[in-house]
Formats: sequence, structure tokens, C-alpha cells
Amino acid sequence: MTIKQLIKQIKSKQSLLCVGLDTDITKIPPHLLEEEDPIFAFNKAIIEATHRFTVAYKPNTAFYEAHGEIGWRALKKTIDYLNRHHPDIFTIADAKRGDIGNTSSMYARAFFEDMQFDSVTVAPYMGRDSVEPFLAFENKHTILLALTSNEGAFDFQTQKLSDEELYKKVLRTSLTWQNSQNLMYVVGATKAEFLKEIRQIIPEHFLLVPGVGAQGGSLEEVCHYGLNEHYGLLINSSRGIIYASKGENFAKIAGEKAEELQQKMKLMLNDKW
Amino acid sequence: MTIKQLIKQIKSKQSLLCVGLDTDITKIPPHLLEEEDPIFAFNKAIIEATHRFTVAYKPNTAFYEAHGEIGWRALKKTIDYLNRHHPDIFTIADAKRGDIGNTSSMYARAFFEDMQFDSVTVAPYMGRDSVEPFLAFENKHTILLALTSNEGAFDFQTQKLSDEELYKKVLRTSLTWQNSQNLMYVVGATKAEFLKEIRQIIPEHFLLVPGVGAQGGSLEEVCHYGLNEHYGLLINSSRGIIYASKGENFAKIAGEKAEELQQKMKLMLNDKW
Repeated sequence: MTIKQLIKQIKSKQSLLCVGLDTDITKIPPHLLEEEDPIFAFNKAIIEATHRFTVAYKPNTAFYEAHGEIGWRALKKTIDYLNRHHPDIFTIADAKRGDIGNTSSMYARAFFEDMQFDSVTVAPYMGRDSVEPFLAFENKHTILLALTSNEGAFDFQTQKLSDEELYKKVLRTSLTWQNSQNLMYVVGATKAEFLKEIRQIIPEHFLLVPGVGAQGGSLEEVCHYGLNEHYGLLINSSRGIIYASKGENFAKIAGEKAEELQQKMKLMLNDKW
Repeated sequence: MTIKQLIKQIKSKQSLLCVGLDTDITKIPPHLLEEEDPIFAFNKAIIEATHRFTVAYKPNTAFYEAHGEIGWRALKKTIDYLNRHHPDIFTIADAKRGDIGNTSSMYARAFFEDMQFDSVTVAPYMGRDSVEPFLAFENKHTILLALTSNEGAFDFQTQKLSDEELYKKVLRTSLTWQNSQNLMYVVGATKAEFLKEIRQIIPEHFLLVPGVGAQGGSLEEVCHYGLNEHYGLLINSSRGIIYASKGENFAKIAGEKAEELQQKMKLMLNDKW
């Protein structure tokens, strides 16, 4: 998917919402356990209930890997379903990969070609040659961990190098990498006050923002500091939507929660434009 | 596996050798493609030919994920085979994971419980709460990326913070994390000259050292600077062993290459003790 198509969708849906499909079999409504593939059945119902308010879906691969080949098959079925029925929606493999060159190439092929995700999250620690293999794919996007939403982000990411903090160095250096136009960045909503300086370094790129909701980040602040003239934000909610209810009506409630967030986003988009 | 058991094995085999099972279906001998599970058939043959000279096996998970559920099944069969037939050999899931707490817990359970690996490689960028869920498992080991063997390591890892380089900060900070006795560290053989200072910060911990062979690192230097009184080194070779031959005799040749490396290690261990 091109950035243009993503922007067009945000505009038409008036939403920045990314729904995190962190599907945990111990947390899904019990009646689904009778299905042949409960994880996929859950995802499908959530997708059908939320897609009108949602511009992106983000399965965290850990939740699928935890079930080995069965989980992997559910992930494949989920992305296939999205690509078949909702090809206009942006897809993110939240995998946080990153390895030496030939291995990163394998990951890139797995997520971009075999699975046909639009994007994948990548950790920057190993530097340029661990990220460029992902950037080489046209109209595919690499979402670099920059300033994550967890407490541990202060261990290294905000540590000052001789001239600036590590996460800023990551932002600045990554702009020099080949095909850096295919980059997006993870910036946690719990660190919204950092967004002003971040936008000075990367005014144009899209940010994937976790941490609104359960982790306590503020949607208002994220929009205030993070929006740019091409929107430039995807705001993720996982648990707050997909586990809002454990009853048989879980999908309906998930849809309502998604709509609620989207309506708030719409207000903020209208405020800005 | 306990560190004591690992040390005992190094002593009895006189070897630091870790064989990387980076099994790529396009690179294995063609006659294996007729097997029901060519990846597992290849791994099994390599293991049988090399285990006498080898103290650790390290499948890089990317090579398995690239084949989706089929690859995942081959990985599971490989680790099951190792645990059943060679329970004395240390196993490493080279997965380079790292995520927020609840997600890191899922990864930890997947690799330590479901798959029964002895250890997993983890990226440090997200800090303490992304690593401690791995450290919580008794007699399981978390191998933190510290100074990796690739060129991109100079992008961030060797950048100077106000007081010291990032990778040293990673080493020092990680020692304050809960259950840090379960840590090991990745240090690339291509950066052997850094090992002297690294050993001042972490004299006791085991290091997993990639980059000897194809990437040009020196076994002699690694041993010179890296060995400690409990050995403290696992030295990985992947392509140099498993793809040494593409013929029907590939396993025999792999065994010879493994023995060759082990003999060099033995000399260096004898030099030291």
C-alpha cells in the first residue's frame, strides 16, 4: 500500500485508529473455543465489527508464535482475510525484528511477500544493515522502534549521547538509510511530550503510537503534537477494544469501543482542519 | 540447563563450538528435497555428524518463520530431537526478540516452555521491563545483543553516551536487572579487540560469539580476550559448517569442519590451562 492510499483512507474514515489483534486464547470469549480455529474466528469477528472505524490492523506476532504452527496458521489466515476482504486497510506485523543483513532479508520476505503485510515493526539496535533489507521493498513500510511506550524506554532510548538522546540519534541516522521514505516510527503515547521535538526531526513520516488507553497515554496530546499535514499518525488500541467484553456480544462491544475512539479522533481531525 | 552443566560439557568435549542451524531450503543438498520434511532431515543429519564436537546448537528462527507453519513445525521437530537425543547440549533460539512486558512473557513461554530451548537471544533497546520476563525462568538463559558482528553495530552500539558507549551501558545496566545471573551476551568476533573492556564489565558471564569464519573474525583473538576461568565462550559457526558441502556427503563434511574448529579450540583451551 502507498502512503497516499493510507492518507486517503484516514481522510474518508476520519480515523487514525489501529486495532491491535493481540489475540490471547485465554482471554477470548469461551463460546469461541468450540470453533475449529478460535483465534481466527475471534479475529474475523473483531475485524467485521471494527473495520468501518479502523485504518490499520496490527497483530502482535508473539501472540501467534506462542501457539507454534497452529498460531502461525491463524496469523496467516488473518492476514489473508484482511487482504481479501479489506484490501484498503493498512496491515502491520508487530514483530520487532532486526538481525544481520541476510537474516533481515528472510524476515522481510516472510512478512512482505509470503504474508503480504503492508508493514513490519523493526528494532534499530543493530543499525543500518539490519534495517535496509526491509526498506528495499517498494510500497512496503518499516516501522522503526524509536521511543517505545514502556518504562524500560528510559534505560537506553532516552540516554544522552555526546550530542543528543539515543532515540533522536536513531531518528536522524535512519533518515540517511537507503529508501528511508519507507520508514515509519513507533513512538509511545505515554511519551507524548517528546513528540514536539520528534516532529522537528521527522516532520513527514508516519508514527505508530501505542499506549493510548490501558497504558495511560493521552489521545489529545498525541494528536496535538503528532499530527502533521498528511495526518502522520496511526494510533493503536489493543486490549481496550478486543477484550472490552468476554460475552457472546464481544464483537459488537468491540465495534462500539472502536467507534468511540474514532469519534474522538474525528473531532481532533476537525479541530485541526 | 545450568551453567555448571554447560561448563562441564565444554570441559569434556574441549570445545566452545556452537553450530548455527540457519537452514535455508534453497541451500541444502538437492537429494534431501525428496524427504517429507527436508529442513528437519537436513538438521538431523547435521546434528548427528557434528554433535561430538559441539556444545551448543543455535537455530536462527528467521529461517524457519520464512516458511510459515511448515518452517515452524521443522523448528519444533529440531528442538524436540535435540532435547530427546542430546539433552546435554545447550540450545539457543536465535530470535532476537524484545517487546513490552506482557508480550515478552509470551515469547519467553513460547521458547522456554513450549519449545524447551535453554536460551533465547533478546534485543536490549526497550530496556529492563522488556528483558526481565525472560530472566524470570530458572535455569533458562537470556542472551542479550550487546555488540553485534555486523557493520551496523557502529550506528548506535558504539556511540558514546555522556560517560561511555551504548553497548557498555547495556552491559552495565543489564547487571542491575532482576535475575541477571541468567544473562549471557552476544559479542561479535569481528570486534574481538573490544573484548578486553567488555570482560572488565562482565567478567563472569558467558558470551555467544558469531562472526568467526565467513564474517572474518579471529578465533584466536576471541579466545585470547574472551575466555574466563569458567570458559565463558560459545563460538558460533553456521554457514562454514552446515553448507560446507552440497553433496550427498554434506553431513560427513559438516562433521569434519566442526571437528576442525573444535581441534583449534582444544589447542587454545590447552594453552590457557
